[in-house]
Amino acid sequence: MPNVVNPVDVSAEESEAKKDYYDRHTPHVNCEANAKKGDKFKVKVTLGKDYPHPDDHDHFIQYVQLWNRQTLLAEASFLSGTLGNTPGNVEVDFYIVPGGKMNLSAMSYCTKHGLWQSENVEVLVD
Amino acid sequence: MPNVVNPVDVSAEESEAKKDYYDRHTPHVNCEANAKKGDKFKVKVTLGKDYPHPDDHDHFIQYVQLWNRQTLLAEASFLSGTLGNTPGNVEVDFYIVPGGKMNLSAMSYCTKHGLWQSENVEVLVD
Amino acid sequence: MPNVVNPVDVSAEESEAKKDYYDRHTPHVNCEANAKKGDKFKVKVTLGKDYPHPDDHDHFIQYVQLWNRQTLLAEASFLSGTLGNTPGNVEVDFYIVPGGKMNLSAMSYCTKHGLWQSENVEVLVD
Amino acid sequence: MPNVVNPVDVSAEESEAKKDYYDRHTPHVNCEANAKKGDKFKVKVTLGKDYPHPDDHDHFIQYVQLWNRQTLLAEASFLSGTLGNTPGNVEVDFYIVPGGKMNLSAMSYCTKHGLWQSENVEVLVD
Repeated sequence: MPNVVNPVDVSAEESEAKKDYYDRHTPHVNCEANAKKGDKFKVKVTLGKDYPHPDDHDHFIQYVQLWNRQTLLAEASFLSGTLGNTPGNVEVDFYIVPGGKMNLSAMSYCTKHGLWQSENVEVLVD
Repeated sequence: MPNVVNPVDVSAEESEAKKDYYDRHTPHVNCEANAKKGDKFKVKVTLGKDYPHPDDHDHFIQYVQLWNRQTLLAEASFLSGTLGNTPGNVEVDFYIVPGGKMNLSAMSYCTKHGLWQSENVEVLVD
Repeated sequence: MPNVVNPVDVSAEESEAKKDYYDRHTPHVNCEANAKKGDKFKVKVTLGKDYPHPDDHDHFIQYVQLWNRQTLLAEASFLSGTLGNTPGNVEVDFYIVPGGKMNLSAMSYCTKHGLWQSENVEVLVD
Repeated sequence: MPNVVNPVDVSAEESEAKKDYYDRHTPHVNCEANAKKGDKFKVKVTLGKDYPHPDDHDHFIQYVQLWNRQTLLAEASFLSGTLGNTPGNVEVDFYIVPGGKMNLSAMSYCTKHGLWQSENVEVLVD
């Protein structure tokens, strides 16, 4: 079955030894720490910070999901070539309307290296 | 088979008579008119301008696609509740890297009213 | 915007002149003519009859949808390589539970040649 | 972040105590033990054996994926209502063309109870 890599669980040594590999595959949830109930709320999901990921026909990021705990909120899927078939970092902005406190995370799929999870991001909603 | 509604083809009378219906279902491509080859380029896809769309379990916008002519670049899919189960307007920002002149359009699917197409948007790339 | 090719609308001359092109892209709905309300009902969706379609990284069938009039029932999506990167015909069996008379159709997306629609198939349900 | 439940890892006690819960959510890969290289090969993915799963607007199986180790081969996605809004068991047949020995598994998403993995199924290919 596919691994689900959660970089939070990876040892510092392993993470440092393969830092380009971990960096370019790890999804991140970027948003404000506070939201207003019923208002549209922007959540940017990005992959990688310092290292770009290939966008090759046989090696690209095919989907990115935004989760609130066990609930899938939205998914963006791509074909190879969306990033011009050059190395780059997938990025997508979702707009959601929160009903209460959220614990957001992202999951992404690399066609060569399986499923990856982001850190969790708490968002207070009032 | 499902209709594919292209509001560009709808008569002014029909469009005026059911203007809330046409407005809330029509996807729009929002971006700069010019892009730089190889640079990341933001494309916001929105639905509706003056009228919100329901976000009910049996009536919501399930997916939005971004196309360059015959080529699907990216798709965002949603579950009911992403907009808090209150009327609102779906919005998503994609980031693409153009290789040459583009003719962008969006397509969206409403679980009650089928497939809808946006206008075409030319983007010059240099 | 993407064409939605409906081979039913194509002239006999055009269809004959490019018969491999039309054959290999056209989705078909294969099922019994009668279903029993509340019972699981198998619907096979196939593409092409006499000509195989490429399964290349830049030219493959990326998704197949099953529709009941304006309602999307199910979608199967693929990556290149699902058919071994050799020419072949996409095939998928969906299982649905009908609530009343259906008018089924399929839609498919070829990464080079856009969206295609099948014929309509009436299913009586009692 | 979402749990990824792998029933193989669940204790016998826990599994017995909540056997309906585990049964109805667990995906299974059903296929022959041997395949022929280059030939189309049928893989049926099912959910549950003894207990049906709800098909409610706020509680249904939204997608089922077929994996070969780290590689996603195909995904079927559904809307609530595909099973007639009555309890039932999701089922889909994929057709793939193997290039070599496979280690198949399935993953499914329940809109209330997160991600679930199947057992692994080895398929010899000659």
